[in-house]
Amino acid sequence: MAPAVCLLSGGMDSAVTLAEARSAGYEAHALSFRYGQRHGVELEAASRVAAAGGAREHRVVDVDLSAIGGSALTDDIAVPQDRGTAEIGSGVPATYVPARNTVFLAIALGWAEVLGARDLFIGVNAVDYSGYPDCRPVFLRAFEDLANLATAAGTEQSQRFRVHAPLLELSKADIVRRAAALGVDLGLTHTCYAPVSTGGGAATEKVLACGRCDACILRLKGFAEANQTDPIDYATIPATTR
Amino acid sequence: MAPAVCLLSGGMDSAVTLAEARSAGYEAHALSFRYGQRHGVELEAASRVAAAGGAREHRVVDVDLSAIGGSALTDDIAVPQDRGTAEIGSGVPATYVPARNTVFLAIALGWAEVLGARDLFIGVNAVDYSGYPDCRPVFLRAFEDLANLATAAGTEQSQRFRVHAPLLELSKADIVRRAAALGVDLGLTHTCYAPVSTGGGAATEKVLACGRCDACILRLKGFAEANQTDPIDYATIPATTR
Repeated sequence: MAPAVCLLSGGMDSAVTLAEARSAGYEAHALSFRYGQRHGVELEAASRVAAAGGAREHRVVDVDLSAIGGSALTDDIAVPQDRGTAEIGSGVPATYVPARNTVFLAIALGWAEVLGARDLFIGVNAVDYSGYPDCRPVFLRAFEDLANLATAAGTEQSQRFRVHAPLLELSKADIVRRAAALGVDLGLTHTCYAPVSTGGGAATEKVLACGRCDACILRLKGFAEANQTDPIDYATIPATTR
Repeated sequence: MAPAVCLLSGGMDSAVTLAEARSAGYEAHALSFRYGQRHGVELEAASRVAAAGGAREHRVVDVDLSAIGGSALTDDIAVPQDRGTAEIGSGVPATYVPARNTVFLAIALGWAEVLGARDLFIGVNAVDYSGYPDCRPVFLRAFEDLANLATAAGTEQSQRFRVHAPLLELSKADIVRRAAALGVDLGLTHTCYAPVSTGGGAATEKVLACGRCDACILRLKGFAEANQTDPIDYATIPATTR
């Protein structure tokens, strides 16, 4: 089996992307980042997803993007909540981390070079790329071009790096359906930008998805449109997605 | 003054690059990385160089490239020593850190986006790009293309990102001469891949450049060809560069 590096955030999209890589016959080397995001709960989810998804190994690389600032995910900027899906789809959101996918793909490229892998998997999709410039197909092709110039390996035609984004054209509802088809347990995943603790000490504490941030709203809408029930627990479920 | 992000390693090349950026009228925001390199002495040098070079600020971002392995600079792989300059110039060296410049430029791009800067400075030069694929002009142009697709800002023609590599066509001797012309104190810089401690406890301990790794040999050769004396201390100075 050819090795591939799969970016794994702990969210629904990258969990399905990992399953797609495995289903396409790759030996998956899962890669996550501790990048200054507020919630370690994402990395716990990534670890569960890697194990359940049959990754050969899972590495977590520290890259402190909070040192350069500029995002609600790493700074003291408020995460937007209760926005409609039309509003979510317009403009670059406050949760955009500058150049995040460029940084993540660059590190994935470095690891691929060490592993002798030529294939990178990333879980970007159509719903994202209205707002995030580094989720667009044109960005992914430019990264492939760069990868083949950045490395010793990529200069041979037969050894070209490829960036696979199997969810690129899928809606969130499509992704929910694809997860079911591939046997991905979405109950292991974490999507929320602003998780809510139930408190009560370590023994009984649970972390709930807020149900109100853009990520929760898009996720819940995807489940609703796919006529499925999201297995994770929410603090609030907005009426529009019930 | 327009802001620019300048990559700063603590070495001679990036010190001169910072001076070129300032000389061209930019407000320099210096950026260094704690990337799992063995020697914190590089970062101390970067801090001295940033202060002496008139950087507006200096940030150090943690990115643990040792987690993906594959380089003599971050792993337990021996740093080559006592090689001739012909040998140094052939093939990808053991000190190559996979995708390092891609990762560093990606993080610089993220910071530039936060700062509203459109100019990135990097100290790559002609001597490097025989061995390091990510020091070639074609790589730098591909990164510019990527940068303009990766960001919200780059889509406007008037706002295009530019990667400046003012040392690209210079030899090490040219760089030594340029440092003198720009008033850069090369005594503040650190180049060695395998520094040697004199021991003796913190009060009297000094860190000497080894004089035997590829970086030392190329640096010393540059000074010799420019008919100048390197102000830093070496444990050994090879006869060929005296």
